[in-house]
Amino acid sequence: MIQGIGAAAGVALGKAFVLPHWELDLPESEKDAVDLAKEFERLYEGIRTSKNEIEYIKNEFREMVGDEESHIFDAHLAILEDPVFMSEIRGLIERQYKAAEVAVKEAIDHFVSMFDLLDDEYMKERAMDIKDVGNRLLKHLLGAPEVTLPSDTQPYILVAKELSPSQLAHLNPSHVLGIVTMSGGKTSHSAIMARAIGIPLVSGVENRLDRPIQTGDFLALDGEEGCLYVNPEVPVIERYQHLRSQQQKKKEQLQLLSSVDAVTKDGAKFRLAANMNSLKELDTALQNGADGVGLFRTEFLYMDRSAFPSEDEQYEVYRQVAEKTGGSPVVIRTLDIGGDKQLEYFPLAEEENPVLGYRGIRITLDQSELLQTQLTAILRASTFGKVKILYPMISSVDELKMANEVLQLAKEDLDSRGVPYDAEIEAGIMIEVPAAAMISDLLAEECDFFSIGTNDLVQYVLAVDRMNEQIAQMYQPFHPAVLRMLRTTVDAAQGAGIPVSVCGELAGDERAIPLWLGLGVDQLSMSPLSLLRVKHRILNTSAAEAREEAQACFRLRSSMDIEQRLSRFAATQQV
Amino acid sequence: MIQGIGAAAGVALGKAFVLPHWELDLPESEKDAVDLAKEFERLYEGIRTSKNEIEYIKNEFREMVGDEESHIFDAHLAILEDPVFMSEIRGLIERQYKAAEVAVKEAIDHFVSMFDLLDDEYMKERAMDIKDVGNRLLKHLLGAPEVTLPSDTQPYILVAKELSPSQLAHLNPSHVLGIVTMSGGKTSHSAIMARAIGIPLVSGVENRLDRPIQTGDFLALDGEEGCLYVNPEVPVIERYQHLRSQQQKKKEQLQLLSSVDAVTKDGAKFRLAANMNSLKELDTALQNGADGVGLFRTEFLYMDRSAFPSEDEQYEVYRQVAEKTGGSPVVIRTLDIGGDKQLEYFPLAEEENPVLGYRGIRITLDQSELLQTQLTAILRASTFGKVKILYPMISSVDELKMANEVLQLAKEDLDSRGVPYDAEIEAGIMIEVPAAAMISDLLAEECDFFSIGTNDLVQYVLAVDRMNEQIAQMYQPFHPAVLRMLRTTVDAAQGAGIPVSVCGELAGDERAIPLWLGLGVDQLSMSPLSLLRVKHRILNTSAAEAREEAQACFRLRSSMDIEQRLSRFAATQQV
Repeated sequence: MIQGIGAAAGVALGKAFVLPHWELDLPESEKDAVDLAKEFERLYEGIRTSKNEIEYIKNEFREMVGDEESHIFDAHLAILEDPVFMSEIRGLIERQYKAAEVAVKEAIDHFVSMFDLLDDEYMKERAMDIKDVGNRLLKHLLGAPEVTLPSDTQPYILVAKELSPSQLAHLNPSHVLGIVTMSGGKTSHSAIMARAIGIPLVSGVENRLDRPIQTGDFLALDGEEGCLYVNPEVPVIERYQHLRSQQQKKKEQLQLLSSVDAVTKDGAKFRLAANMNSLKELDTALQNGADGVGLFRTEFLYMDRSAFPSEDEQYEVYRQVAEKTGGSPVVIRTLDIGGDKQLEYFPLAEEENPVLGYRGIRITLDQSELLQTQLTAILRASTFGKVKILYPMISSVDELKMANEVLQLAKEDLDSRGVPYDAEIEAGIMIEVPAAAMISDLLAEECDFFSIGTNDLVQYVLAVDRMNEQIAQMYQPFHPAVLRMLRTTVDAAQGAGIPVSVCGELAGDERAIPLWLGLGVDQLSMSPLSLLRVKHRILNTSAAEAREEAQACFRLRSSMDIEQRLSRFAATQQV
Repeated sequence: MIQGIGAAAGVALGKAFVLPHWELDLPESEKDAVDLAKEFERLYEGIRTSKNEIEYIKNEFREMVGDEESHIFDAHLAILEDPVFMSEIRGLIERQYKAAEVAVKEAIDHFVSMFDLLDDEYMKERAMDIKDVGNRLLKHLLGAPEVTLPSDTQPYILVAKELSPSQLAHLNPSHVLGIVTMSGGKTSHSAIMARAIGIPLVSGVENRLDRPIQTGDFLALDGEEGCLYVNPEVPVIERYQHLRSQQQKKKEQLQLLSSVDAVTKDGAKFRLAANMNSLKELDTALQNGADGVGLFRTEFLYMDRSAFPSEDEQYEVYRQVAEKTGGSPVVIRTLDIGGDKQLEYFPLAEEENPVLGYRGIRITLDQSELLQTQLTAILRASTFGKVKILYPMISSVDELKMANEVLQLAKEDLDSRGVPYDAEIEAGIMIEVPAAAMISDLLAEECDFFSIGTNDLVQYVLAVDRMNEQIAQMYQPFHPAVLRMLRTTVDAAQGAGIPVSVCGELAGDERAIPLWLGLGVDQLSMSPLSLLRVKHRILNTSAAEAREEAQACFRLRSSMDIEQRLSRFAATQQV
C-alpha cells in the first residue's frame, strides 16, 4: 500500500493510463531569419486561439460544476491580458529578434522562476497558472500535438506528474474513474476541481513509488484515505470492490427518497429547496426532489458577454424556471457582482478588500437602471409560476426602501405598457451582513421574507475570509456568535410574522439540523447535490430530541464544543 | 478669488514660493561606451541610496504624524524591490547596453504609461508612486541637485505643480504656512498627508489661474473652502487675518483646559486617555491633559528593523511610558500586525482580503514565543506604574483563554528568574470583531476590561472597508446596528462588573458624547490632538439632556437620522 494524500474522496478500481509528460522541443532561433511582423502575427494569433480555448473550457466546466470553481480560468485569461507579461514577450521579439515561441518560453521561465523565488504559496500558485497558460500558448505556436486521452476504451485511472486546472477541465467523469498525481496536495486548484467534478484523487505519491506506474497497471485507490495499490492482490481488490459497491448502493437508496417529504420521525416538516447557478442545474434539482428554487443566482446571465443582458433575454430565462418548477416558489436574487465576481464589460476598480467592498445591491442601487431592467424581467415572468424577489447584501433600512422604490418603478412601467405581472409578488432580503441581522426587526417591517446567507454572514461576524486557507480553521459556522446572530434574525422574522429560509452552505450540513429545529427554521435551500443526503438525515431525526440538543448547544461557549456535540447527536440518530 | 478644491483645512497668508518643475536632462547613451559591470554597480548603488533615503523620510514622517499615513512609503520601498520593475531595468542595461539612468527613465515611462492606460484610479496612484520612486532613483544616478526649500527666510506658502508624498514629507510645518497645487484633489496621498501634518492645502487650481503664480506673490488661502487669492486687496487680507487669529485664539483657549477635569455641566465625569503610536507622542498627550494611555500600540517597536525586538528592548520602552504617566493607567496592546501592517523580517502570505485575514492575536497565538516575550517585557515594566495588557482581534473564548495561558507562562518565567512584576496586572480585550461583541457576556467572565475598537467593528458589522473610497459614504459609525453592538457590549461589561472604554475614532467624535452618556461609557481614548476639543465639548454638555437624546437615537432607524439628530443636539449645547 502506498500512502499518498487523500485529495478528493471516493473509491476507484481500474487500469492506469499514464499521461505522457510533454517536453517542449524548441527550434533554435536564428537572428537573421526572423521577420518581426510575422512573429507578432503568430504571437497574436496564438493568444487569440488560447483565449478562445480557455473561454470554451471555462464554459464547459461551469455547466458541469457551477460557478465557484470556474473562476480559476479567469485568472488564466487575465494572464493573457497582463501588460507586464505581454510586454516582456513583445520585448524579446522586438529587441532580440527571437521567434515568438522562444520569447514565450523565455518569458514563462523568467516569471515562473521569479515567482518561485518569492517563496510564497500565493505566488507559487500564480507561477503554476503562468506555466499552464504559457504552455497552452506555446502549444499553439509550435503546433504540438494535443495528447488525446483514450475515450473509446474502458474507463481508466489517470496518472500524471501534475495536472493543471485546464487539463482537469477536459476530463470526462464517465471515462475517468480516478486520478493519481505525483505532486500536489489537498488545497491545490486541481484538488478543488476534482472534488467539484466528483473524481477520486490521490496526490503526492512521487517519492512513495518503488517504480513508475505504467499504462496498463491495475490500480485501486481510496481518495478519502489517500491509499493507493499498484497491481494489488485479490483480497485488496475484493475489499475495494465491496467499498465501491457500498457507495453505489447508498447513492441509489438516496435517489429513492426524491419524492418523499422531508419530515422528522415525529412529524416536523422541512421544505428543502435548491440553490442554482444556472438554468442547467434545474433538472438535477427537480430529479432530486427540490421543493422549488430557494436561491436562483442570476450572475451567469451577465457573464461571458460583451454587454448587459436585455430585459427580454432575462425574461426568457426567468419564465422558463418559473414554468418548470410548476407552482413551487422560485426565489430570484438580483445581480450580486463585486467581491470576487467581475463582468468584463463593466469594470470595477481594484479593491484592497473586495469582500468588504463595492458589491451586490450597493452596485445595483447606484446603477438603478440595471436593477430596474432586471426587476421588470422578473415581474414579467411572475405570471408563469410562483416567483419571488431577493435583494443581496442589504445592510440598512434605507437600502431596502430604495430597492423597493425601484421595484415600484418597474411595476409602474409594466402598468403603463399594459404587461401583466403578479401584483402580490414578494420581495425579501439576504441576511448576510452582520448589520442586517442586528437590525432584522427593523428590516422585517419592510420586506416579505428573509433568506440567511450563512457563508458571508460567518465570514463577516468572525472577520475571517472563508477563501483564506491560512485561517481556514477559524472559519467556524458553529461559532456561538453565529448561532446568536441566527437566533436574533429568526426571532425578528417570527416577531414580524414573515418566513425565514437558510441558503448558505450550512443549510446543506446535516449536523446543523437540530439548530434549525431549535431556532424554528423550516426552510432550507442548498446545492441540488446535497438535497437527498440532508433529507435522509431529517427522516431519521427525532425533532423533540433535536430541539433539546439545540438548546444545549446555544448554551455552549465554543465552536468546537458545539460541533462535537452536534456530531455525537447525529451519530445517535443514525439508522 | 480663485475657487480650488479644499483639501486640508486651515487659513494661510504669506508669500508664495514656487517649486521649480524639475525636468530630467538625460545623457545620450552610447552603445559602445557602456561598461555593463559599471552600470549595474551604479544602479545598485542608486537603489541602496534611494532605499535609505525613503526609510529615513518614513521614520521622520512617522514620528511627526503617526503610523497610519507613513505606510505610503512602504509602497515606495516595495517598488524598489519589485521583481518585474527591476528586471525591466536590468534587461534594458543588459540587452540594449543602455546607461543605468536611461534604463530607469525608460522603465518608468513604460510602466507609467502602462498603468495610465488601464484607466483605473488604483493603477493611476501606482503610476504616481512609480514616478516618485523612479525620479528619486534617477536623481541619484544623475547627481541632479536637490531643490532646496528656503529654510532661513520668512515662512512661505508652497506652490507646486503636484507634490509627491516624499516631497511633502520633507516639509517643515513651521516654515510652510500653506500649500497650493495645480492638480490633485481631496483624496490624493498628498492631501491625506497635508491633513495629517496640519498644513492648509488648496488643490486643482491649474485652469483657474489667469497667470502662473510667481515666487514672491502674496497669497491668502482657505483650505477648508478651497479659496485662493493672489495679491489680494487689503479687505481680503484683513478678513483672512481675522479668520486666522480666531483659529489661533481657539487653539490657545483649548490649551487652557488641559488641567481641567472632563465633567459635564451636571457633574458626569469622563476619563479621557490617549491613543499612542510611538513614545514620542507621550509628551503631547500629557501636555493635552491625557488621563493615562488608553491604547499604546506597539507595532512601531517591531517596524523598520531586521529582527524582532528583544525582551529588554521592549521592556525599556514600556518602563519609560509607565514611569512618565506617573500612576495613570497605561494600556499596552500586544502586537497587532497583519491586515495592512507588515514586518519586513516576518513575511506574511499575500491575502485577497487582508482585513479579514491572518492578523493580530491570530498570528501571535500561532507564534506564541513572540507573545510571551512581549508579555514578559510588559510584566517587568508593570512595577513602574499602572500597566495593563490588551489583546487585539479576539473573536472567541478559546483565543482569550490561550492568550491568558501565555501570560501565565510569562509570569512563571519571571517567578523562576526572581524578577518582580505586578501580580494583579489586568488583561483586557479589544472588542472589534462582531463575534466578540455578540459573545461579550462570555468574554467578560475571562478578562478584566473591554476596549471597543470602533474602526474595525464598524467595518466588519457593515461589511465596508473603511479605506475603500468607493463606498466611503457607507462607512457609518452611527448606523443603528453599530449602536446595538455597542449596547450589547457595554451591557455585558456592566453585567460582569468590568470597565469598558472606547478607543476607536468614534471616541474622538464630539457628536458621539450623548451616546457614551446614554450607554454608560465613561472612558474614552483618542488621538492626543483630539483630547482638548472633546473635553471642551463635554464641559458644555448637559448629561441629563444628552442621555435623553441618546435614548431617542437608539430608537431611530437610519445612520443619517442619528447623525443629524446628534449634530443638532451638539449645536444646542454650544456655548
